[in-house]
Amino acid sequence: MKRIGVLTSGGDAPGMNAAIRAVVRKAIHEDVEVYGVNYGFAGLVAGDIRKLTRRDVGDMIQRGGTFLYSARYPQFATEEGQLKGIEQLKRFGIEGLVVIGGDGSYRGAYALTKRGFPCIGIPGTIDNDIPGTDYTIGFDTTINTVLDALDRIRDTATSHVRTFVIEVMGRDAGDIALWTGVASGAEQIIIPEKGFDITKVAENIREGREKGKKHSIIILAEGVMGGNEFAEKLDAIDNFHVRVTVLGHVQRGGSPTARDRVLASMFGAKAVDVLKEGKGGVCLGLVNEKIVVRDIVETLDNMTHTPNLDLYKLNEEISN
Amino acid sequence: MKRIGVLTSGGDAPGMNAAIRAVVRKAIHEDVEVYGVNYGFAGLVAGDIRKLTRRDVGDMIQRGGTFLYSARYPQFATEEGQLKGIEQLKRFGIEGLVVIGGDGSYRGAYALTKRGFPCIGIPGTIDNDIPGTDYTIGFDTTINTVLDALDRIRDTATSHVRTFVIEVMGRDAGDIALWTGVASGAEQIIIPEKGFDITKVAENIREGREKGKKHSIIILAEGVMGGNEFAEKLDAIDNFHVRVTVLGHVQRGGSPTARDRVLASMFGAKAVDVLKEGKGGVCLGLVNEKIVVRDIVETLDNMTHTPNLDLYKLNEEISN
Amino acid sequence: MKRIGVLTSGGDAPGMNAAIRAVVRKAIHEDVEVYGVNYGFAGLVAGDIRKLTRRDVGDMIQRGGTFLYSARYPQFATEEGQLKGIEQLKRFGIEGLVVIGGDGSYRGAYALTKRGFPCIGIPGTIDNDIPGTDYTIGFDTTINTVLDALDRIRDTATSHVRTFVIEVMGRDAGDIALWTGVASGAEQIIIPEKGFDITKVAENIREGREKGKKHSIIILAEGVMGGNEFAEKLDAIDNFHVRVTVLGHVQRGGSPTARDRVLASMFGAKAVDVLKEGKGGVCLGLVNEKIVVRDIVETLDNMTHTPNLDLYKLNEEISN
Amino acid sequence: MKRIGVLTSGGDAPGMNAAIRAVVRKAIHEDVEVYGVNYGFAGLVAGDIRKLTRRDVGDMIQRGGTFLYSARYPQFATEEGQLKGIEQLKRFGIEGLVVIGGDGSYRGAYALTKRGFPCIGIPGTIDNDIPGTDYTIGFDTTINTVLDALDRIRDTATSHVRTFVIEVMGRDAGDIALWTGVASGAEQIIIPEKGFDITKVAENIREGREKGKKHSIIILAEGVMGGNEFAEKLDAIDNFHVRVTVLGHVQRGGSPTARDRVLASMFGAKAVDVLKEGKGGVCLGLVNEKIVVRDIVETLDNMTHTPNLDLYKLNEEISN
Repeated sequence: MKRIGVLTSGGDAPGMNAAIRAVVRKAIHEDVEVYGVNYGFAGLVAGDIRKLTRRDVGDMIQRGGTFLYSARYPQFATEEGQLKGIEQLKRFGIEGLVVIGGDGSYRGAYALTKRGFPCIGIPGTIDNDIPGTDYTIGFDTTINTVLDALDRIRDTATSHVRTFVIEVMGRDAGDIALWTGVASGAEQIIIPEKGFDITKVAENIREGREKGKKHSIIILAEGVMGGNEFAEKLDAIDNFHVRVTVLGHVQRGGSPTARDRVLASMFGAKAVDVLKEGKGGVCLGLVNEKIVVRDIVETLDNMTHTPNLDLYKLNEEISN
Repeated sequence: MKRIGVLTSGGDAPGMNAAIRAVVRKAIHEDVEVYGVNYGFAGLVAGDIRKLTRRDVGDMIQRGGTFLYSARYPQFATEEGQLKGIEQLKRFGIEGLVVIGGDGSYRGAYALTKRGFPCIGIPGTIDNDIPGTDYTIGFDTTINTVLDALDRIRDTATSHVRTFVIEVMGRDAGDIALWTGVASGAEQIIIPEKGFDITKVAENIREGREKGKKHSIIILAEGVMGGNEFAEKLDAIDNFHVRVTVLGHVQRGGSPTARDRVLASMFGAKAVDVLKEGKGGVCLGLVNEKIVVRDIVETLDNMTHTPNLDLYKLNEEISN
Repeated sequence: MKRIGVLTSGGDAPGMNAAIRAVVRKAIHEDVEVYGVNYGFAGLVAGDIRKLTRRDVGDMIQRGGTFLYSARYPQFATEEGQLKGIEQLKRFGIEGLVVIGGDGSYRGAYALTKRGFPCIGIPGTIDNDIPGTDYTIGFDTTINTVLDALDRIRDTATSHVRTFVIEVMGRDAGDIALWTGVASGAEQIIIPEKGFDITKVAENIREGREKGKKHSIIILAEGVMGGNEFAEKLDAIDNFHVRVTVLGHVQRGGSPTARDRVLASMFGAKAVDVLKEGKGGVCLGLVNEKIVVRDIVETLDNMTHTPNLDLYKLNEEISN
Repeated sequence: MKRIGVLTSGGDAPGMNAAIRAVVRKAIHEDVEVYGVNYGFAGLVAGDIRKLTRRDVGDMIQRGGTFLYSARYPQFATEEGQLKGIEQLKRFGIEGLVVIGGDGSYRGAYALTKRGFPCIGIPGTIDNDIPGTDYTIGFDTTINTVLDALDRIRDTATSHVRTFVIEVMGRDAGDIALWTGVASGAEQIIIPEKGFDITKVAENIREGREKGKKHSIIILAEGVMGGNEFAEKLDAIDNFHVRVTVLGHVQRGGSPTARDRVLASMFGAKAVDVLKEGKGGVCLGLVNEKIVVRDIVETLDNMTHTPNLDLYKLNEEISN
């Protein structure tokens, strides 16, 4: 393989640039050329493709977002889109493709491989909700960004003796809520993987006040419900004067942490190794601190992501 | 004067602890004792008062919020509340009071002074909306917190080529929006001090896209309207797919910046100097980099806060 | 076991407070009382011991350093010191002790256990150099602190096209240098676990310049030699005008990262579980993302810490 | 004037990119073309000059360093260098030049103006040591960077009850030491503008310990002497076991603060206004929160920079 491509797809995540940089540098080190595809699969179909040099990825490792831009592009699920994508890749002489993104991106990578074009998936999403890996690129940065916000909010919560509901990202997975809940010493964590009983939530707030707690902070994964809706439910029970903060897009950006940069670098370099061997249809993961290579179909079909629910129990024991 | 009190009132602001520390340290340096009043005027009326030592304010300068807690307490506008407050102060042998907060706090300080108990106001609020001072304690920290959030959001905005509306604090004053708008290179700034024409806002977004801009960021002061309402107005004109982030309480906390700590320290020490001279009914301000001492009534009645609107014009010229 | 003690020993590390908090909260949750020992083994011998309540550890999870203070105390290696320590613990009715620190601390914990007083070691040190665990409390925070400094230095290195040598902590272990070297995209990493050839280092700098690199950053673990000594060796080969920065104590403090707070919380709670079962002479570790309990002697005598040297090879491939 | 140039010179400072951006955007807004000169006066003489577009300065406002690179170039003091520089400027059709830097840069700007080529100086240096302005671009960022380091060091200082000497930048001016000393609550500040008595410094440390202080932090401006030399003097008096940290180049980089970005933006836009009027030989300053335009010669010859020494006195009163 003498020429490979790389694209980022789905929601952007801090560390994507570090992964692209590693793909480029490692490939050049192996005498392989690298082409970048702008705007994910949309740009692939449109042929928005350019050669990347060592210099293009200089001083990129520390930047948030993705300098190849990203896009959601449901049309890529069609045969037409996929064939057009492969046509474009061939037009540029590209023989293999690295796809950095979430499970939608994995499906695109798998579809191309099935049509004879070898692709490799790298897990990049802030939600940590991809099966087959303990951690995704971006998750570590995001939990530290959320934690910084929680530390700030606690200053105010403590100063005014208040109850706060903080809505964090996580449509299907409670990982962000779990890690930041434990790390911030939040009183309660509400995640999709666990039910919740609003009367018990209210009771906990009251108990905390009786114990002399200066504040009560509840971390809510967006997948459960919206922060304002949750606060209304609480205020219906008692007059808690709950304050709500929806952290929103702040969670997505920022310079990646050390761990996200290292993880992204390892994934990027490994992807080149695997592609060079001619393998496609696989995705990378970090399992027990080691990089693993797995079949995409098997990963998407037979594996599920489960957050570390020990953290849920831990928080119940030490935060009340 | 051998014994003074200090309290924080209204919304908490980063740097309040640095101001309390300076009051305590300076007073002790002048052989004056200091008592801290918890929970603002509410705690004053309740007699929630304790002696503060040098050690109580050790390692406090860097902490957000206020370790004396704060509260809003409209009842202090009544004669009964004020007389009760003075009674409590006298019970502890306190002869003068430093009040750190916004204009509500100033009114409380003025009321006590008029009843014969000398009080001094120190401007502490993140909104920078107090007359008689160029800057309030907390403003510098807040604009840097907001800026950090805007830098993160821009990573995503650039990666996905999107339009964002970011609602920042500022009920009556556009200072936070103005400073962070210029500092983040926002495309547009919407503040209460200036009208806005939604069709022109939309036009600017379109023009930016035609010029090849990767994103459009609009900073909106909450005093104008809510971020979601604003986004709906925009989307009614064209399908901009506007994303909204309401920064909320994140803006209020955090370790104070160098400037806020220095300003707070200067104010705190000066307040002790002024009280020692037996003066009350005055408030402190920073005007042209110098501390000034002004009559509270005159300040509240005859002066108005105006943000630096040159920044508005500047942004129109360099951000489009 | 109805009453346990906790102390921090050796160099302080971010997350120690989070670990103490977890010990206290988990113990109270299990109806066990907790006593804090100030100043490590020195304070133990001196009897500087006090009861800790839920409130003592409120708003502590986010603070750097250790609120129980730490100290190095070589005298604890003597029989006299150890017997005195046990006497003090018994005087307070303490039946088991949690020791948070590095391998010196482990030896103290083991010595007490051998004398019949059950102790548990929790790995807390920024260097990550303790056998029997993949990560120690404080390491994640430190690499992010170093990374922040490296990102700043790169701004200047790029602006002026210069060569920088950055000395980071790590007397015996290259972990900090390895992780931050990869994460910052440093051109070269010099660690005790690998030899280095100064002529080759110089050659790499020259090659980088020929490739058009704007800067050359070399991360040097202090265990190899001092930064200034290294720079002199380089400048003796060619006139590189090397700039040196010795990061020093800045690396040690700061609010802990999400990962360090979570790790510390897990360790703290687990220590209580293990002590309750009456076990002593063991230390905790994180191995493959799971908490493990190991014999201290076996850990210190038969296990060695080795950093992830794959990172060394990775950096050679992608940073040149 | 239809075409102007811009360069950065001397040590880099955070906010230089924001200033360049404002020059470019404001000039384009006024239908003036802008050319960037790489590597300061060295690049000017070498003709390393290129047109800058709106896009070149996109997403630049938040970056540390200077994307035009900087260099020290003493040869520019010669007639030959200056004539060559003007020749290059004319070759590109450039009619006026904005020079961002310290007082060396001002002298270069003045020399060109005297030879008939209008130049404008913008104060950009982290040291704040330029006459004619209250603040320079970069100072606010630097004091916050230093403060962050000091907050980290205090964690360790408190945990171990130690004395630290922190050497900060400031060859001729004590501004960085003064502001960060007050903001960090340092026990003592040693600056070139004030003498110091080492026995008194030692006495203060002892007194602090007697008062129960957990640490003693001394901020030392590098212009007084090196940190290690200072520590040796202290340890010669008593066995303080002083720890030294030399902050070094970490102080120079990083994303600029809100204030530095706003100041840089105001300066950059104003420089275009002034050049358009055909004025040269002037420099910009911020005096009492307003931009002023002053003759360079008068500024360099008749004005001197003095730090706010009230802060020195303030610190003596509240930090001991």
